[in-house]
Amino acid sequence: MLLHENGWRVVRADVVVAGGRIDAVGRPGERPGRGEALKDSLTVEGRGKHPAIQVRDCTGCLVIPGLIQAHIHLCQTLFRGLADDLRLEQWLSRRIWPLEAAHTEETVYWSAMLGAAELLLGGTTAILDMETVHHTQGAFRALERIGLRAVVGKCLMDAHPEGAPLELAESTDTALAEAESLARRWHGAAGDRLRVCFAPRFVPSCSGPLLRAASELAELFGAQVHTHAAETIVERETVLRTTGMEEIAYLDSVGISGKHAALAHCVWVDQHETARLARQGTNVVHCPSSNLMLGSGVARVPELLEAGCRVAIGADGAACNNRLDVFAEMRLAALIQKPRLGAEALPAGKVLELATVGGARALGLENEIGSIAVGRRADLLVMDLREPHVTPAGADPVSQLVYAACPSDVRDVFVDGRALVLGHELVTVSVDEIGREAGRCAAELRRRAQLA
Amino acid sequence: MLLHENGWRVVRADVVVAGGRIDAVGRPGERPGRGEALKDSLTVEGRGKHPAIQVRDCTGCLVIPGLIQAHIHLCQTLFRGLADDLRLEQWLSRRIWPLEAAHTEETVYWSAMLGAAELLLGGTTAILDMETVHHTQGAFRALERIGLRAVVGKCLMDAHPEGAPLELAESTDTALAEAESLARRWHGAAGDRLRVCFAPRFVPSCSGPLLRAASELAELFGAQVHTHAAETIVERETVLRTTGMEEIAYLDSVGISGKHAALAHCVWVDQHETARLARQGTNVVHCPSSNLMLGSGVARVPELLEAGCRVAIGADGAACNNRLDVFAEMRLAALIQKPRLGAEALPAGKVLELATVGGARALGLENEIGSIAVGRRADLLVMDLREPHVTPAGADPVSQLVYAACPSDVRDVFVDGRALVLGHELVTVSVDEIGREAGRCAAELRRRAQLA
Repeated sequence: MLLHENGWRVVRADVVVAGGRIDAVGRPGERPGRGEALKDSLTVEGRGKHPAIQVRDCTGCLVIPGLIQAHIHLCQTLFRGLADDLRLEQWLSRRIWPLEAAHTEETVYWSAMLGAAELLLGGTTAILDMETVHHTQGAFRALERIGLRAVVGKCLMDAHPEGAPLELAESTDTALAEAESLARRWHGAAGDRLRVCFAPRFVPSCSGPLLRAASELAELFGAQVHTHAAETIVERETVLRTTGMEEIAYLDSVGISGKHAALAHCVWVDQHETARLARQGTNVVHCPSSNLMLGSGVARVPELLEAGCRVAIGADGAACNNRLDVFAEMRLAALIQKPRLGAEALPAGKVLELATVGGARALGLENEIGSIAVGRRADLLVMDLREPHVTPAGADPVSQLVYAACPSDVRDVFVDGRALVLGHELVTVSVDEIGREAGRCAAELRRRAQLA
Repeated sequence: MLLHENGWRVVRADVVVAGGRIDAVGRPGERPGRGEALKDSLTVEGRGKHPAIQVRDCTGCLVIPGLIQAHIHLCQTLFRGLADDLRLEQWLSRRIWPLEAAHTEETVYWSAMLGAAELLLGGTTAILDMETVHHTQGAFRALERIGLRAVVGKCLMDAHPEGAPLELAESTDTALAEAESLARRWHGAAGDRLRVCFAPRFVPSCSGPLLRAASELAELFGAQVHTHAAETIVERETVLRTTGMEEIAYLDSVGISGKHAALAHCVWVDQHETARLARQGTNVVHCPSSNLMLGSGVARVPELLEAGCRVAIGADGAACNNRLDVFAEMRLAALIQKPRLGAEALPAGKVLELATVGGARALGLENEIGSIAVGRRADLLVMDLREPHVTPAGADPVSQLVYAACPSDVRDVFVDGRALVLGHELVTVSVDEIGREAGRCAAELRRRAQLA
């Protein structure tokens, strides 16, 4: 089992789960809380209709905290492969805007389901998600069914961006009213597994009052604010020109800063802005694949960490990645810093922190998830690290996880102690059904967006 | 099926294999050479002891050419995870030299077997490999047994590098004599599936006469020369200081240039050297993960291609990657160019060429492998692209392969028409045996190299 106590440490131990939380962590020879002393096992006490105790033998496997991605767009999963090799501005106007405008509640539902299936099968147990302007209800319904932990926001935008279809236009009041209504319905749903965030798209598509109101609603509901910031040099310059302020300072001026805020990207922040992010405890969400794919740049993550910033990681959407693979993101996060700063920069242990404790903070759940400890929610992975590509064993398991492991090494996945993946198979929804419905919905979207 | 004829094109067709080569490619409705007209099937006529015809249903799958990696060190597979987060010079002197010096023929055998298993399961069917100074026989024996196509060279070095153990020192004559003896034994073995290359490590560890003799031996045997070049700025400056010449020009002066030469890395080449590489048809092998991991830099692959260079791709060794995953390398090759040159740089189709036709050229096998065409060797993959992470279908399959696919999407692997992987399982050697022996050998190496 992988523990995080002043760095990562592997211990042989048994984990006992009760009521969806970690009830005991027994070292070999000790007696765990409510079960027999077992080596390398996971004991899960059932709840509700399924009260039986399950004991999962984890011999030869590594139990680790569920991994967390703090910037995802589930509504873009159906756009995978439709928007390759384009710059951010063209990527948005030629592909993403028309496709988002073509969404219905049904296509949002299957896009979220497809993304959540990939995430769970690949070891991501919790996400901070930004949906599109309409039909966010569809994403919540899919997430309720499949079992992923998610903090989800409807995309807020009231300044109509150039090139965006009229279907995505919304007034400030309508946008806020719908966001509030979603919060009343979904914040805390499914035993607090589902929560809302308030998600203004980015400064150029939002008025000052909208940003301010989003921040206030977040405070009212005890929720996170989730937005994009400083993704490209064009965005940085646009914000400077239109607001007269540097982007991080401007966001702060409308209340979007501090522990309840998560800013995706932050590629283009200077030393001054970095110091501000650190001082205020604002969460930065690093999206290395997306930043490369769209040609945005390389975020200065080691410098952000050095300055004391809270940093998480995320795959962004499948339309600019094209994976939702936390292992690919972790490995890339480490690799891309090294030509600039040397091979020692951002070592494996630091990167694994971004996808665990860093993610938990960005979701506003730092006391609930992100590590294996008594009282935490039982979001756990059983990693089977015995395939040739992660052999030989005996080296540092943190290195194995960050540099060598793949989604296919994830054997079992638990969220709130509920088994969602067992033996590499999704148990809550049929993947055949997901594949079929996703294919149908994607064809429909392409047709409606006039891409095919 | 994925064909390469002025760009990539998907056709529904049946492939018929006979005598280890592609005998017919039948479009739907046509009658393939020696079989029934089938849709999306692969018909393999057996040979020797197994004359039965196998028909493999590939409905819903994509048959693609076996992928090729043109720079691999199988002898380093057992070092995976033992040398993370170190610069090239420290990585060599603290880890790689001592570990290579500790190798026996048995540990080289299992290191090669482990690497080959990972490669085959992940869709790589052919490699250009550099072993260590001794025991290369062990690698050939493993490759003979497991079935991978490989062009393998014993590492040649006669100038003792600083920090290298004495066990790796060899005189020029001894080095050349052993290389020649290996060539007599193995060049063309296993039905020409195994070939040798002549593999001087890199300029700083080789005398001029050794480099010249390696080139002459390659010509004598009709074999490739395989070396490292221009990997780091330190190497570039060392070569300039010690030879008075730029590295690519110096290699050319000792005969290492042209189609029979494959130079790994070429991160630090200027416009002048790029033009020389292009003019002479020298193969450049791009190793994006390794170049990032060791902090070496980003090779200017789009500029190399633009200048007319022949470019292949490779994972290098598991000690600086830590995967041997051709899908990870393809995706990274595309991504790392985009912040520098824009999102349009090195699109998916170009990258797939590096891992197919580019690799075939670097191995000196451009008329034998790298595409699906009548008369070519039947090195084929059946990709099952139906898991959530490659869904929805309907978009460009080349994008799916380069940006989204994983080793776990490789269903079947054929080399010379022989099934080596069927239904994601290695058929020639037991992976349990490989895992067990690799673990034992790795522990022994760590102990002998005094790392643990």
